[in-house]
Amino acid sequence: MDSVARLSLNQITVERVGLAEAVEACARHGVPYVAVWRHKLAEVGLDRAARLVRDAGVRVSSVCRGGMFPAPTPAERAVRIDDNRRAVDEAATLGAEVLVLVCGPAPDRDIAAARRMVADGIAELAPYARERGVRLGIEPLHPAFAAERSCITTLREARCLAQAFDPATVGIVADVYHIWWDPDLYTEIDRAAGRVVGFHVSDWLVPVHDVLMNRGMMGDGVIELQRIRTAVQDAAYVGPIEVEIMNEAVWNMPLDTLLPLMKERYLACV
Amino acid sequence: MDSVARLSLNQITVERVGLAEAVEACARHGVPYVAVWRHKLAEVGLDRAARLVRDAGVRVSSVCRGGMFPAPTPAERAVRIDDNRRAVDEAATLGAEVLVLVCGPAPDRDIAAARRMVADGIAELAPYARERGVRLGIEPLHPAFAAERSCITTLREARCLAQAFDPATVGIVADVYHIWWDPDLYTEIDRAAGRVVGFHVSDWLVPVHDVLMNRGMMGDGVIELQRIRTAVQDAAYVGPIEVEIMNEAVWNMPLDTLLPLMKERYLACV
Repeated sequence: MDSVARLSLNQITVERVGLAEAVEACARHGVPYVAVWRHKLAEVGLDRAARLVRDAGVRVSSVCRGGMFPAPTPAERAVRIDDNRRAVDEAATLGAEVLVLVCGPAPDRDIAAARRMVADGIAELAPYARERGVRLGIEPLHPAFAAERSCITTLREARCLAQAFDPATVGIVADVYHIWWDPDLYTEIDRAAGRVVGFHVSDWLVPVHDVLMNRGMMGDGVIELQRIRTAVQDAAYVGPIEVEIMNEAVWNMPLDTLLPLMKERYLACV
Repeated sequence: MDSVARLSLNQITVERVGLAEAVEACARHGVPYVAVWRHKLAEVGLDRAARLVRDAGVRVSSVCRGGMFPAPTPAERAVRIDDNRRAVDEAATLGAEVLVLVCGPAPDRDIAAARRMVADGIAELAPYARERGVRLGIEPLHPAFAAERSCITTLREARCLAQAFDPATVGIVADVYHIWWDPDLYTEIDRAAGRVVGFHVSDWLVPVHDVLMNRGMMGDGVIELQRIRTAVQDAAYVGPIEVEIMNEAVWNMPLDTLLPLMKERYLACV
């Protein structure tokens, strides 16, 4: 890695600022991509957001996040699908190739039923995404989030879900924080060849306190980043690499300190 | 489940008290088994501990814990093996059939190398355990603990490790807190038939704050306990069922409140 041509600032890494400030910082520091979160998008509005990124010459690597399919009733599940269609529209308007799917937890104790609702939800959403030229990226989340964010926890499960669909429409997103522990990691990255539509980097800090906010800057934790990046590249993914860090210390850094550090660590560690 | 004949109080559930108090509470409340932790055992000494449980008529379901095999140098790994041999001796003296193995984290970023050290460590320990009539129970830990406690995180990985050995000597321990999220949960419990040497129950509370201390009393969380218990039983495990809860609120309950609650929830929820 000798350039930042694939580098993307995932907006959650700069949670304290709005989209305008994030995009301007990317432009100022030569970071070519930004990943947009929908709660930040809602603050500025879709049209203004589209102008912001276009005027800054920054490309949108993905929109985070669709998904959250499981719900107790068919009516509630239909509301989730509608919201996912809006997310697809937003991705299309922003020129993002990928809508990241965080699939959602079970509404009760029945995680197997929730997984079926995820499969059904993706099946319902996929034709709409295909029409609008947006790829759906199923992101397996770390099993620590199985009860609150995603009943889909492994690369294998995400790949098996994705395989029911055309790879041009449904793929998987590999985030090192969520998958680094998996004994089948490299086998599964290999099996996902042609299906990887996103790659997220950060690091796993030790000791863990709050598992949600435990992500660190690349190089500060225990993840074998270069080995995983190489495997993902060998699986034919050559798109943007998003830096996605939820961490209070990172959030408190001024952007003109954070972005140079992020570039330096990306070049040295990823 | 209409009796507490298989119920075991894992000593970490009553972390605030010593072994004598834990064993007396078991006897007083008709809990037939206790699982002994080595740091608690060290407080009273092995001989006194053996007398305590014998005099109280309480049986020792397991000793927690051996393992922690990976270390940076051969000399350090040898020290770990010696410590494991002492743990085997302790289990034998206490009449515990099982020594629980928490396999340990990687000493660096190379989790694959750590997994090989675990396999090598078990191979070195197994003949000693066999001689003393103690079974080694490989306990996969939740992936949230992969960096700090165990590079072995799934039932599948534990079973694959165990299969290199005689089932009379090496098996696996299924703890619902560690395995409930696994998409291969029931397939893997089934494949482990004849290899399950321990079953631990608690619950996964929502929301998660500190993932180490997030265990709850059975019924207070999202785990499908009865379904998992049935599957483990169908996999031919009919031994003690340990209640293992690390949780400040549980630790602060008086034992004469906690043990009746534990029995009630065991009968209602497990």
